[in-house]
Amino acid sequence: MTSVHCYSFLDGDGKNKALLGGKGANLCEMTQIGLNVPPGFVISTQTCITYLQDNTLSDSLISEIQQQIRKIEQQTGKTFGGTSNPLLVSVRSGSAISMPGMMDTILNLGLNQQTLTALIEQTDDARFAYDAYRRFIQLFGKVALNIDDEKFDTHFDTVKQNSGIKADSALTAEHLEEISNLFLAVVQEETGQPFPENVHDQLELSIKAVFQSWSGKRAIDYRREFNITPEMANGTAVNIVTMVFGNMGDDCATGVGFTRNPGTGVNEMYGEYLVNAQGEDVVAGIRTPKAVDELRTEMPDLYRQLVDLRNKLENHYQEVQDYEYTIEHGILYCLQTRNGKMNAAAMVKTSVDMLNEGLINKNQALLRIDPELLEQLLHPQLTLNHNIPVLATGLPASPGAACGKCVFDADTAQRLGQAGEDIILLREETKPEDIHGFFAAQGILTSRGGKTSHAAVVARGMGKACIAGAEDILIDIKSRLAIVGENHIREGDIITIDGSSGHIYLGKIPTTPPEFSSELQILLSWADEISELEVYANVDTPENAKIAANYGAKGIGLCRTERMFNAPDRLPLVIDMIIADNKEDRETALAKLFPIQRDDFQQLFEAMSPNPVTVRLLDPPMHEFLPSETQLQDEIESLKQYATIIKAQRVTLESIAPNSPLPPPLDRLNEELINETISKKSAILKKVRDLFEVNPMLGHRGVRLGMSYPEIYRMQIRSILEATALCIKQRIPISPQIMVPQVITAQELTKVKEMVTEIQQDIESQFKVSLNFKFGSMIETVRACTRAGYLAEEAEFFSFGTNDLTQATFSFSREDAENKFLPLYEKSELLQDNPFEVLDIKGVGELMKLTVKLGRETRPEISIGICGEQGGHPKSIRFCHEIKLNYVSCSAPRIPIARLATAHAKLLEN
Amino acid sequence: MTSVHCYSFLDGDGKNKALLGGKGANLCEMTQIGLNVPPGFVISTQTCITYLQDNTLSDSLISEIQQQIRKIEQQTGKTFGGTSNPLLVSVRSGSAISMPGMMDTILNLGLNQQTLTALIEQTDDARFAYDAYRRFIQLFGKVALNIDDEKFDTHFDTVKQNSGIKADSALTAEHLEEISNLFLAVVQEETGQPFPENVHDQLELSIKAVFQSWSGKRAIDYRREFNITPEMANGTAVNIVTMVFGNMGDDCATGVGFTRNPGTGVNEMYGEYLVNAQGEDVVAGIRTPKAVDELRTEMPDLYRQLVDLRNKLENHYQEVQDYEYTIEHGILYCLQTRNGKMNAAAMVKTSVDMLNEGLINKNQALLRIDPELLEQLLHPQLTLNHNIPVLATGLPASPGAACGKCVFDADTAQRLGQAGEDIILLREETKPEDIHGFFAAQGILTSRGGKTSHAAVVARGMGKACIAGAEDILIDIKSRLAIVGENHIREGDIITIDGSSGHIYLGKIPTTPPEFSSELQILLSWADEISELEVYANVDTPENAKIAANYGAKGIGLCRTERMFNAPDRLPLVIDMIIADNKEDRETALAKLFPIQRDDFQQLFEAMSPNPVTVRLLDPPMHEFLPSETQLQDEIESLKQYATIIKAQRVTLESIAPNSPLPPPLDRLNEELINETISKKSAILKKVRDLFEVNPMLGHRGVRLGMSYPEIYRMQIRSILEATALCIKQRIPISPQIMVPQVITAQELTKVKEMVTEIQQDIESQFKVSLNFKFGSMIETVRACTRAGYLAEEAEFFSFGTNDLTQATFSFSREDAENKFLPLYEKSELLQDNPFEVLDIKGVGELMKLTVKLGRETRPEISIGICGEQGGHPKSIRFCHEIKLNYVSCSAPRIPIARLATAHAKLLEN
Repeated sequence: MTSVHCYSFLDGDGKNKALLGGKGANLCEMTQIGLNVPPGFVISTQTCITYLQDNTLSDSLISEIQQQIRKIEQQTGKTFGGTSNPLLVSVRSGSAISMPGMMDTILNLGLNQQTLTALIEQTDDARFAYDAYRRFIQLFGKVALNIDDEKFDTHFDTVKQNSGIKADSALTAEHLEEISNLFLAVVQEETGQPFPENVHDQLELSIKAVFQSWSGKRAIDYRREFNITPEMANGTAVNIVTMVFGNMGDDCATGVGFTRNPGTGVNEMYGEYLVNAQGEDVVAGIRTPKAVDELRTEMPDLYRQLVDLRNKLENHYQEVQDYEYTIEHGILYCLQTRNGKMNAAAMVKTSVDMLNEGLINKNQALLRIDPELLEQLLHPQLTLNHNIPVLATGLPASPGAACGKCVFDADTAQRLGQAGEDIILLREETKPEDIHGFFAAQGILTSRGGKTSHAAVVARGMGKACIAGAEDILIDIKSRLAIVGENHIREGDIITIDGSSGHIYLGKIPTTPPEFSSELQILLSWADEISELEVYANVDTPENAKIAANYGAKGIGLCRTERMFNAPDRLPLVIDMIIADNKEDRETALAKLFPIQRDDFQQLFEAMSPNPVTVRLLDPPMHEFLPSETQLQDEIESLKQYATIIKAQRVTLESIAPNSPLPPPLDRLNEELINETISKKSAILKKVRDLFEVNPMLGHRGVRLGMSYPEIYRMQIRSILEATALCIKQRIPISPQIMVPQVITAQELTKVKEMVTEIQQDIESQFKVSLNFKFGSMIETVRACTRAGYLAEEAEFFSFGTNDLTQATFSFSREDAENKFLPLYEKSELLQDNPFEVLDIKGVGELMKLTVKLGRETRPEISIGICGEQGGHPKSIRFCHEIKLNYVSCSAPRIPIARLATAHAKLLEN
Repeated sequence: MTSVHCYSFLDGDGKNKALLGGKGANLCEMTQIGLNVPPGFVISTQTCITYLQDNTLSDSLISEIQQQIRKIEQQTGKTFGGTSNPLLVSVRSGSAISMPGMMDTILNLGLNQQTLTALIEQTDDARFAYDAYRRFIQLFGKVALNIDDEKFDTHFDTVKQNSGIKADSALTAEHLEEISNLFLAVVQEETGQPFPENVHDQLELSIKAVFQSWSGKRAIDYRREFNITPEMANGTAVNIVTMVFGNMGDDCATGVGFTRNPGTGVNEMYGEYLVNAQGEDVVAGIRTPKAVDELRTEMPDLYRQLVDLRNKLENHYQEVQDYEYTIEHGILYCLQTRNGKMNAAAMVKTSVDMLNEGLINKNQALLRIDPELLEQLLHPQLTLNHNIPVLATGLPASPGAACGKCVFDADTAQRLGQAGEDIILLREETKPEDIHGFFAAQGILTSRGGKTSHAAVVARGMGKACIAGAEDILIDIKSRLAIVGENHIREGDIITIDGSSGHIYLGKIPTTPPEFSSELQILLSWADEISELEVYANVDTPENAKIAANYGAKGIGLCRTERMFNAPDRLPLVIDMIIADNKEDRETALAKLFPIQRDDFQQLFEAMSPNPVTVRLLDPPMHEFLPSETQLQDEIESLKQYATIIKAQRVTLESIAPNSPLPPPLDRLNEELINETISKKSAILKKVRDLFEVNPMLGHRGVRLGMSYPEIYRMQIRSILEATALCIKQRIPISPQIMVPQVITAQELTKVKEMVTEIQQDIESQFKVSLNFKFGSMIETVRACTRAGYLAEEAEFFSFGTNDLTQATFSFSREDAENKFLPLYEKSELLQDNPFEVLDIKGVGELMKLTVKLGRETRPEISIGICGEQGGHPKSIRFCHEIKLNYVSCSAPRIPIARLATAHAKLLEN
């Protein structure tokens, strides 16, 4: 009869994790490569699914189980339920994907009054036998009979208390017998039935319980949390394994090990063991285990066996292994192995080492590391062993840990930052005018806004730690105080934030600096050899360009010129430009901005030389550069009051000391200045009201501004091209690219191109140089996708702005969606992912494919990239590779991740 | 030599309007079908375009012109510039599409000192000759030499004043000679050159001037306004026609006519003529002409000839003709014909009549009417039972009633019109340069001119109410005052005009909607026979449903349930629902809304029985039902003040008359009520702030509300299905359809469908009926288009919400775009049309095609329609037909237009 449910470790297919689960496959694999695994068999995941439908163990399954038990009896010479040398087994779950602790395990199965007696006789160790028995009753009661753990624990504790015993190890055989009997009574009481004496009944009930644990709440939650789909793991296998005991005396032990040090990646024996103990004692941490090095002296022969086991495991699996073993009367059994979970540094080091050792090849070295894991290496991390309680939690908006003095406004942040202080900028929410505070601060904390708030986006771009929307924090800006429950944080108090977890702490927690190790450099250079997609950076300043270049960026895919506008020395000029009532005034303001922008671009080109620098022309609606209506109203009101007060004081002074000149704070100039300021602010207020838009995201922005105010685009184009000319004059090799945002029709590109060509000719004749640059289009409106064939007639490159394109495709405003309904959509599985984090392949991706097709039909050599935030995420990068984009562009700190992910995309391509 | 520029009327291709212009082609056609047309030739539109590029008349063109002139000389026996029997010609523009009054005409060309003498000798009528001469000098001076009309008019008026003459007809030959000489002096003075004596120079200068008028501002504005693209008309032809004179004595006359009455469509002789006058006298309205009926008695033979001419024209053109003729010494010449512009009622009647007469077939009867024209039939008419006295009466020149502020010039009309004012433009007479005033005005009123004056023709073309020649009105343009007897109308005063009766009233008179004529019913029934697209209505109330059914709607394509929410008796319930803090409170509010909605739906189903009624579940974001933040703040502030005052008053009263009960307005209840109101409004204010969205268009709305607050959708679904059950119980045949808005993924539809099914089962068992209804999806997000194949698994119908889909495709917020940048986009031709009015085929259309393809692949029988505003526009309807939608749905008053347009779409399909 062919086996359809059960597979002996001797012949189960060790590669078939889908059928046998990860643990079961490994037990088969280990058995078949000659490791000493206790005999056993696996019931398949398929059987689990069938059971969950039928709710019964089929006759054929029961017959196979009995057959397999007989095989174990033959291998071990033991008898299941036997009156001498009884066979005890463990029953363990194990699905295709490891879900640690999520499903159930039963140990010592096969014990009943008869076999217990046999075991005592056989081992001459009543304490050991009763200990095994009471553990079995409790586990079986809990798992197979659904009895609350506490019912057992209460009895256990009572016996300990009554006998004045503290440590479990001090319990005698008699105590344990008493406990076992009490436990049997619990079972009777809770189930109305005696504890099952028939070992086959025990086994069947346990198998059912393990199957059922697959559809338990805990397991379902876990799968949702980690996005484990039925395609990835469907049902749990059940492993039935002969029990071996590490607690039968001092020639027994149990231990766990990693084949390499999982903290450092160093190639050394690593692990812990306990003499005379069961495996769960090690894991539970009740007794302090010994480091594996001690085994070398304590049991030198077994240590050699363990080294041999470790070598066999790594040679076979070509991966660092996390294994468990038991020594029973001097015989080493390997109970389990799985790929070792390690921190990023260790993963990187082991990849490089294992390649150097000839254990794996480059592709394996790259593929074994999840690109996202590298994030750990790029930001400061909190030291692990602090014990400071979490004060509050917000949204983890930009990874990394930071610590510093709490400061409530950007100016103070700048002042203290310049004085060398570490700063955490704490605001309700941030605005573009706070940008200097970001530069000064180590981290940013806001009490409002989501992961795409201004604070979050800017901090991510800068690679600074940020927590957003920590709503438990009440900020009283006037008192310069933040209130969290009963705690008050005053300005200057030191706090620590962890942007990776969203946790906020009072006081200082030491952090470990990021390490761009030589191993990581090597690994990423291998990735670059393989990748077909280039990795560019989204950066806006020369400083960040240098950082990006160090991270390995091969160009700048997006420079947002408006970020330059927000610097404190420029914003007043920008505001002058915006409130200008006519073209002339606007051009006067632009003329002042021009040399500043030109210098910016020149520095940027030099910093990224000779690689491409893609400059996007002005994109955001103009009101984004202006203060809010309320703020202006308040300011004007205060100024008016101030003016009234000054005037009153002047009158008073006049009456006391007539004709005497007023002292400086009250002289006429001051009053004039106030009135001038009021009038300026009133003009700004008027403009803010003029510029109000119902849906600014879909408003007067991008190239629409360039069409309405061509003088703004002309200024920007001229500064880009003059910077180009100046670099060429200095023989600095550069590759500038001009990019037009929010395009919906080829006519817009044509108009901008006309401006470019005119200014180009002007500068070429003025500077006597020939300008080399590219002209291209953002693809961030849906219409740009349908018209891509026409846009490609003008554009030499396309860059997908997938933030905006996603908003347009879903009709979701990101700001509103992430606060209002997107969490529900993810939770109810209306959407698999947040499309602003992971590219939506079914909607946005379809438009991207269409664009690539139409664009390349018109201009086969067109360069196409992505500069939306999704461009730095591995899953999205894989899609970009599949549709044959030329580059992805992401924020500087995500470049290493993207470099590895582009290599993965190539290696995993279909 | 083959002619490439010039075509004699004897052999030009009468069908080639693109080459010869409408007028030229007709002159050729008329000549060739045997009508008595004065000999002449056409210079092609192609030659015009060449001229506008080269700015010179080529040698070959000049040679062809001379050749053609010789041909005319042979036909007429006259000589161009000859000293006896001189040939005089007119030079007229004429492009492929009629642009009445937009381009220039010169008459009597060929006169100089020599030919003038010859003409006097030949006619023995010096007065006639000098009259012709002075007219020629002025027209030529204005058109060919760019001299201001006023320079001539001043002299003309001076001579009249000096000689005490009022009517032009009283001027003698001597006066006219004096005037001619003064005019010649004007030319010398203004141009520094004598008036050209060489008749060939005269001709060439005139041709150039006509060519240039094509690119004049007036003509360009006109083409933009009427969307005349170069594909439709490119350049103007020039017609050179032998002059014939209606002003050479009492056996001469000039007239204009329509082959049918253009105001009513009645098949009768229609037109006006003037004995002993030139054509321009009729058109300019300087003398009041006689109705054509008088010609029957005055010149019975010529009347018979005119009837014959009319019959020949209509039989040949199979279309109502607008023709001009001149009788010179008893010989009838036909000078021009073109398709007659008529109001919609006349177009409809003539279509039905001409078909009944066997002149045209059904397709022609339908196709000759521009669907948009029917809009006129929907214009308001004056209520019959008003008792406002008629102030004055003019000629009923274009039907329909209009009411607005009286304005005396086109610029003011434009300014006020753009500010949203209703305007009546009041002028002595209008000129082509007043065209922008027509666009701005609701109605036009002139004190001079007839039913074929400029004002009348243009207003009819636009379907605007017009009264012409209201001679009782004296206009004092400088004082901006119109005097009618003792009444003064000042600029800004409101008047009402009835273009159907010619009555003018002071003040505003209420209007009633127009009646649907039996001819229109017939015509639309023919349209329905042909159409493949069904026409549904977007209506929200039973009343409007009845109106829509009367207009011929075959169903309701969109019922916006939220419109029902806004009724005053419901809004408080809706607000309670919105501010509910928990599901229970929300359900309490919903329970009150439920019976109201159910009754609404029941009435709606009955009104449209047995046709489909498509109910869209709640779509707009909830904050749309709440007052604005400012309004609430103000209200709360006022209430607080009120409460303070009341309290103070109570204290005062208490001190005056302690322990006495307070009078009712100050009793305790009142105060409590105020506080309750404050607390209610504060709750609303809090909710308004909670619900604030940055981009509400892309926010928490549509099915996203249904996912967040399923109880709202459940209430709506239950009320729809219970209304269905109640109708079925009453044996009323109905076809309800439930439509889900803002869908982005099939999962959303699945969830709503689950609610529907559950409620359906509930109601079916409760009412013991089987419910028949359809379940479908709006397609108004881009992602819905890319996922249409999956949506069709749940949806039995799709309805394109092209308003939102256009916003998403363009990333344009309609509200912001139409105020900020869309006008610029249209003006600079960045976009051909406003995509919110005319469906954007290149972007939105591509998505629609994709949706239809994917949707029908999954569900071949799926019904697909459009309910966006574009669904009522003929150009968009044609596209909907081409991509094989099943229906279009539009606002009720556009249904007749849509019915005709759907037939056009079928008849014109490729």
